[in-house]
Amino acid sequence: MNNTLTQLAQVLEDRKQQTADKSYVASLYAKGLDTILKKIGEEATETVIAAKNGDKQQIIYETADLWFHCLVLLAAQGLHPDDVLAELQRRFGLSGLEEKARRTP
Amino acid sequence: MNNTLTQLAQVLEDRKQQTADKSYVASLYAKGLDTILKKIGEEATETVIAAKNGDKQQIIYETADLWFHCLVLLAAQGLHPDDVLAELQRRFGLSGLEEKARRTP
Amino acid sequence: MNNTLTQLAQVLEDRKQQTADKSYVASLYAKGLDTILKKIGEEATETVIAAKNGDKQQIIYETADLWFHCLVLLAAQGLHPDDVLAELQRRFGLSGLEEKARRTP
Amino acid sequence: MNNTLTQLAQVLEDRKQQTADKSYVASLYAKGLDTILKKIGEEATETVIAAKNGDKQQIIYETADLWFHCLVLLAAQGLHPDDVLAELQRRFGLSGLEEKARRTP
Repeated sequence: MNNTLTQLAQVLEDRKQQTADKSYVASLYAKGLDTILKKIGEEATETVIAAKNGDKQQIIYETADLWFHCLVLLAAQGLHPDDVLAELQRRFGLSGLEEKARRTP
Repeated sequence: MNNTLTQLAQVLEDRKQQTADKSYVASLYAKGLDTILKKIGEEATETVIAAKNGDKQQIIYETADLWFHCLVLLAAQGLHPDDVLAELQRRFGLSGLEEKARRTP
Repeated sequence: MNNTLTQLAQVLEDRKQQTADKSYVASLYAKGLDTILKKIGEEATETVIAAKNGDKQQIIYETADLWFHCLVLLAAQGLHPDDVLAELQRRFGLSGLEEKARRTP
Repeated sequence: MNNTLTQLAQVLEDRKQQTADKSYVASLYAKGLDTILKKIGEEATETVIAAKNGDKQQIIYETADLWFHCLVLLAAQGLHPDDVLAELQRRFGLSGLEEKARRTP
């Protein structure tokens, strides 16, 4: 499971070579930044609604939609999910933990 | 980097034992679902604004904020980021790829 | 211009009698609360994007969309735009001004 | 009630002359567009949450918050709520109704 975001980032990179009529992601790239951002706003609202409905499957589904469109934004901007994960590690001092783990024989 | 979400999920689980005045996350749990959801709406808007500003550091920062509050929502609901990653793998047929990779000698 | 919201509230009330296939508003009522709320989240994001684009016509258009879907929410909940306007008057002490104006001979 | 938005627009215009430490609205103008837009995203999410809570008073309160911050955006951009109301009238053919009403002897 751990490298799912990296795998997805690669898929999103590959879709940059495809034509908009063949791929949803390619059509998002073609429509441009505003369309990608509208999706982020939309999916955030749907995540909120899912949570208020108390429907765990719907929460998973809508959070997946939200993260996915964030990944499309990152790809469109030449960024990688690792940039976001590094920021999260920095905030929580997790890189230190990893660093230590790597040194453990 | 790959296990950052899992590490964070563990941190968020641990914070369930803390008191609200000692930890931001514990204070979010204490304030309840609506407060967590307001943060998701807020951070989604801030991600949109960051992207319109064309500021890559701000995009990374706000996306980290958005994903983080999604992780808090998942933890509060007894869910795990792997649930979301599994949904993303399912959509993109990534688990198949992984399955195949694992079988490779 | 002043009674536009009241006129619209009447239109939205009338649409409660129509079938979903004949009217966009009736279709929103039929799809239910979550669909109306998704539109509010969507139009808020589009208002933000319009403002970041610095496009005044787009700001007017998207704000109209946002207010319109708020009016649909109010109608669906048996509320009237006057309820919202009264709250705004209360906050800004405007009803006092109106009261005074009415007393002017 | 009908001229509440016009009254508010005048209040918001007047606040442009005030210093940020004396008025919430003046502080929004001073912080700039992004701060105003964050509030619109925030209040839209709070309206959604209020509606899912089925709390009519909360719906009125949060919709008032949302419309208010839209009015601040309009004022900051040199626009007037009448611009939005005219767009709504145009869509629903309401100006025609008004036009006809005015001709009635």
